[in-house]
Amino acid sequence: MAGNTFGQIFRITTAGESHGRANTVIIDGVPAGLPLSEDDLIPDLERRRPGQSKVTTQRKEADSPEILSGVFEGKTTGTSIAIIIRNQDQRSHDYGNIAQLYRPGHADYTFDAKYGFRDYRGGGRSSARETNVRVAAGAVAKKLLKHTHDISILGYVKQIGHITADIPNPELVTLEQTEANIVRCPDSQKADEMIALIEQMRREEDSIGGISELVATNVPAGWGEPVFDKLKADLGKAMFTLPAVTGVEYGEGFGVAILKGSQNNDIFVNNNDTITTTTNRHGGMLGGISSGLPIVLRCAIKPTSSLSKAQPTVDQQGTPSEIQTKGRHDPCLLPRFAPMGEAMFAIVLADHMLRQRAARL
Amino acid sequence: MAGNTFGQIFRITTAGESHGRANTVIIDGVPAGLPLSEDDLIPDLERRRPGQSKVTTQRKEADSPEILSGVFEGKTTGTSIAIIIRNQDQRSHDYGNIAQLYRPGHADYTFDAKYGFRDYRGGGRSSARETNVRVAAGAVAKKLLKHTHDISILGYVKQIGHITADIPNPELVTLEQTEANIVRCPDSQKADEMIALIEQMRREEDSIGGISELVATNVPAGWGEPVFDKLKADLGKAMFTLPAVTGVEYGEGFGVAILKGSQNNDIFVNNNDTITTTTNRHGGMLGGISSGLPIVLRCAIKPTSSLSKAQPTVDQQGTPSEIQTKGRHDPCLLPRFAPMGEAMFAIVLADHMLRQRAARL
Amino acid sequence: MAGNTFGQIFRITTAGESHGRANTVIIDGVPAGLPLSEDDLIPDLERRRPGQSKVTTQRKEADSPEILSGVFEGKTTGTSIAIIIRNQDQRSHDYGNIAQLYRPGHADYTFDAKYGFRDYRGGGRSSARETNVRVAAGAVAKKLLKHTHDISILGYVKQIGHITADIPNPELVTLEQTEANIVRCPDSQKADEMIALIEQMRREEDSIGGISELVATNVPAGWGEPVFDKLKADLGKAMFTLPAVTGVEYGEGFGVAILKGSQNNDIFVNNNDTITTTTNRHGGMLGGISSGLPIVLRCAIKPTSSLSKAQPTVDQQGTPSEIQTKGRHDPCLLPRFAPMGEAMFAIVLADHMLRQRAARL
Amino acid sequence: MAGNTFGQIFRITTAGESHGRANTVIIDGVPAGLPLSEDDLIPDLERRRPGQSKVTTQRKEADSPEILSGVFEGKTTGTSIAIIIRNQDQRSHDYGNIAQLYRPGHADYTFDAKYGFRDYRGGGRSSARETNVRVAAGAVAKKLLKHTHDISILGYVKQIGHITADIPNPELVTLEQTEANIVRCPDSQKADEMIALIEQMRREEDSIGGISELVATNVPAGWGEPVFDKLKADLGKAMFTLPAVTGVEYGEGFGVAILKGSQNNDIFVNNNDTITTTTNRHGGMLGGISSGLPIVLRCAIKPTSSLSKAQPTVDQQGTPSEIQTKGRHDPCLLPRFAPMGEAMFAIVLADHMLRQRAARL
Repeated sequence: MAGNTFGQIFRITTAGESHGRANTVIIDGVPAGLPLSEDDLIPDLERRRPGQSKVTTQRKEADSPEILSGVFEGKTTGTSIAIIIRNQDQRSHDYGNIAQLYRPGHADYTFDAKYGFRDYRGGGRSSARETNVRVAAGAVAKKLLKHTHDISILGYVKQIGHITADIPNPELVTLEQTEANIVRCPDSQKADEMIALIEQMRREEDSIGGISELVATNVPAGWGEPVFDKLKADLGKAMFTLPAVTGVEYGEGFGVAILKGSQNNDIFVNNNDTITTTTNRHGGMLGGISSGLPIVLRCAIKPTSSLSKAQPTVDQQGTPSEIQTKGRHDPCLLPRFAPMGEAMFAIVLADHMLRQRAARL
Repeated sequence: MAGNTFGQIFRITTAGESHGRANTVIIDGVPAGLPLSEDDLIPDLERRRPGQSKVTTQRKEADSPEILSGVFEGKTTGTSIAIIIRNQDQRSHDYGNIAQLYRPGHADYTFDAKYGFRDYRGGGRSSARETNVRVAAGAVAKKLLKHTHDISILGYVKQIGHITADIPNPELVTLEQTEANIVRCPDSQKADEMIALIEQMRREEDSIGGISELVATNVPAGWGEPVFDKLKADLGKAMFTLPAVTGVEYGEGFGVAILKGSQNNDIFVNNNDTITTTTNRHGGMLGGISSGLPIVLRCAIKPTSSLSKAQPTVDQQGTPSEIQTKGRHDPCLLPRFAPMGEAMFAIVLADHMLRQRAARL
Repeated sequence: MAGNTFGQIFRITTAGESHGRANTVIIDGVPAGLPLSEDDLIPDLERRRPGQSKVTTQRKEADSPEILSGVFEGKTTGTSIAIIIRNQDQRSHDYGNIAQLYRPGHADYTFDAKYGFRDYRGGGRSSARETNVRVAAGAVAKKLLKHTHDISILGYVKQIGHITADIPNPELVTLEQTEANIVRCPDSQKADEMIALIEQMRREEDSIGGISELVATNVPAGWGEPVFDKLKADLGKAMFTLPAVTGVEYGEGFGVAILKGSQNNDIFVNNNDTITTTTNRHGGMLGGISSGLPIVLRCAIKPTSSLSKAQPTVDQQGTPSEIQTKGRHDPCLLPRFAPMGEAMFAIVLADHMLRQRAARL
Repeated sequence: MAGNTFGQIFRITTAGESHGRANTVIIDGVPAGLPLSEDDLIPDLERRRPGQSKVTTQRKEADSPEILSGVFEGKTTGTSIAIIIRNQDQRSHDYGNIAQLYRPGHADYTFDAKYGFRDYRGGGRSSARETNVRVAAGAVAKKLLKHTHDISILGYVKQIGHITADIPNPELVTLEQTEANIVRCPDSQKADEMIALIEQMRREEDSIGGISELVATNVPAGWGEPVFDKLKADLGKAMFTLPAVTGVEYGEGFGVAILKGSQNNDIFVNNNDTITTTTNRHGGMLGGISSGLPIVLRCAIKPTSSLSKAQPTVDQQGTPSEIQTKGRHDPCLLPRFAPMGEAMFAIVLADHMLRQRAARL
């Protein structure tokens, strides 16, 4: 039983490989009446696009989305929305020995183990290229959430290698701040250091990992469904669907291990007739249900597995060999991660916004 | 749209509150022919049970499961299995002012925000009591996985407060080692320190957080469904459904942030005609699909929110007040977490074992 | 992948066999705040109960439901509701040769083919006994629909053998009329004939089929989800889940085969500022979406397969044999069908009522 | 919560309107390794195509499918398969007053009631045009079933108006017989009468209903999932998702109403070491699980609602008006129904074939 559908009410189903004809998403469950056009999808696709700056892969791919259905006279009709993004270059390449070799850190071996063979062109379905239609769907979710609850979702780089940004108030970071530099780090001083580190990695034919932080503001209290579809559970799953994510945490996250309850508990107060907490170590969710405070999460992202330098490996028969990734690739995945993480974040919130409509008489 | 069902093929649906009549689970999708009786459920329920040692809550609850259906002449029939665990004490208690006050760190406020009111008795549906039937279902999943693939799943304490166990080979830890002490830490020296720390917390009327590590061995390569039901995504969701979990990571986890690709990549080798990797920084999954190596994950678990000492809070009208948790509660959640985490781990693996049957012609 | 869950938002999951310990249903998705107690479940369970009159089986089973969770201080909490109905007699019976023989018209052979073996006691999971918890869940759905939209759902006997009731206005039939006689046929004259026919069947050690008609009134226009979860599709599935149903039709049903479009089309008119149709050949749904007119459907129900007279058959090895059903059984399934059909009808409507909440901005 | 996904393991998700850019289907769950190309989809699309003969609409639409993903080197990869069929003519038409008027028998009014407005171009999402991608997906399902179990699925016309074909052995009808005439009726004599009747209907500016019969052969015993996903339940839902279907029945169908149990029961016999029944009044399913005998079902299909002759109606404000359907439409839906019915039949069987893989240890 395959797994290309995500969400319950706001639900996306995707298809597509790195070097196939096109990536496709069908979005089901967008309420009728939301203004929508391809123009709404472009900005986030541009933020995800390869070749956007010197710290990303230099591969050029224009991601031009086409909405095939579900929109009439500029508004969603309530029926399913299909969007495709064609791959520009599907000519038969010389894929060399990549068909036989298992790239370290990639899914080549596990795909073979699962299906018996694989589409090896550019990684096939395991390539991060499939996330372009997720980003398109995320733009629809974002627009819906902005329309109904004025919700904003923003991702940025918190850490690359040993360089950690100083971001005292995640909920105050603006899109302008994150887009002000090519690593998308709102701490502009650390951003420069990060850029230098990434360039060094490229020179070393190596790559580097990091941590992305994402924040949603204006999410009302009460979203999330006990006991299995808690907001933290669905967001956690969403983030782990993204390539290279090896860890997810909320609020204090792994830092809770060394805290006492008296240190970790956020205390309820009455703030102008709104019940809230003055601190937000809980990351905006209690019992897996939104508390009304900003939802703050972080994803650990591993260093790019593809390296220009040679790495030992084996082929399908287990014969030792060596592999170099000739294709241009990102020396660090962090700068392009923000729109992907935001998209999945938005899809989960849009789903739970609609789910909450059934919670009361 | 509520969320009391988990899994696709091996699927559980649960109901029940802390002080209601009973907790119930219906397990759907267990293949016909598996030997099963209540005796199979007891050991893990005993490991989860309150009052089992001096480092857990002193509340006594015998969790006696009753299988109501789906088993005939000692074997599963392929139809749905219902299990109930009655709550022993449902007499009307004096719940004091807990009905009006919002306990810090708990879901009282968010349940009210969601549903308009809540079952305040012992935390109602937000209490960890609901996990007892998950543990029962997990025991069924474990038995199935052992039967079909000789898979073992084991959880133990990795860290409590600043005390971190030294566990060089997670895949070699045995159930005997973890059960040898009451915190369930296979590093017996650190276990003693952890016990002392927890006892200190109880004296201080406080609590402490920690990290649990879980390992599954013998999972064959090829399980997990791209792109949304990757094994890492479904396991991540599973862990985040558990109360108090604030972070989940695999293999190197958040440690990847400071690694280079050349340091993080595990290299494929041919080991007696099996393709494998000598190191396991990837935690047993590549592209979200099992690689054949042990699956290793860690959960961050916050300190118990309930404290014997007084904490400030507000009531439903926002009036400032103060709360003390009189009920007996765990000064640290880690010792009892292992069977809960193992149960959710097993349910995910059982589901994906069955899902994989549809992957090839 | 088993199939013991029905519905999307209002969703039921069931378990239980004819002679097991209990039947169980977990209802998920009931909005918070609905008044509910066991008393709400009794009336429909009484209408489904065996032994209620001389035209049903004489087997006595009191169906006493117990609500285990999801209700607090007389109101639904928004969390999952578990209900069990214990089977009274689970002592070991002498099941004779029924374990080896395949009863004609029953699922003995197909269960063996599916699972490799079966719980043969009273038909196990294939017995209609499992519908008792569906009826309990249906009572919850009915109460919800009455509360939110004043919807009524009523089933009655339209035909038994060659005797067809004259019911010119299905939407005007009342519960009082259908309950006025023991076959549940609102045409009292035909009801007498039907009763006589059923008694004749019992004397002949035979059984007889029939047609049940069900009507829902006050369903607003707009429910049903294109293109796969049309109301007619979900209702059709719901009816076909019930034992012995061999056909389902709406409005004109199979009668449309001989009609011209100009005869079959219902014409829209303006009736006091409500757009409606004066005739209802379409059975209350257009394009699979409710039109605001009464939803009218009919189910064909086969004659009871169990017969007191001897029937030839084979055993598991294919050896010819003969079988007589000694257990008391219904000579006609129609009188007890109404509450089962109503229950599934209500569950579908409750689901779509909640689904419609997500259709618009 | 919308409803554009059908199936559990073999699962299709569709999008598209009559006059939108394209119809799209994503098929998820096709096992890896099935040979597949666009050529496999063409034959059934040709059988569904408008303008194929004098008894169908004269509208010309070439349905050229494009497989966008999920196939590599001529074989399915196990990942999701996207197929689009572009609509050829999306220029802005003069839709006249169809935007305001409610066509009798169509979903114009109910779509407005549901969503607040509608895509009125050619019926939008409510048009039968959306079924072209279902037929494409059905061709994939058919190929899979032929590959794994040599299953054949065939639909044909059983009745149009008062003309009923004489088909004593549904399981012996061949594709050649049904395709030998333009109404797809294997009784060639009655086919001629049917053709004459349809032509008469066109001359009268009217339309006519009928009954389609569908048969699947070689389905092994054991498919179908108690208690809610019985094969009869899922097939029934599948058929009712198709436009204009007002009734579905299996085997004896509504004819059971007048039968005694002793007449209706099919008797088990041992036929060369296979347990089977000599008669097939049960239509190939017992307890909703396949018995190994041919599965036989019939769908009642209403006369086309669109008429060339004028019909009274109202507009959105309820003002009385009159409507004539100028577009070319089918005077009878039966001839083109077979491939649609077969497609949904095949999708259900493919799903249950894969579901059955999880039924036993």
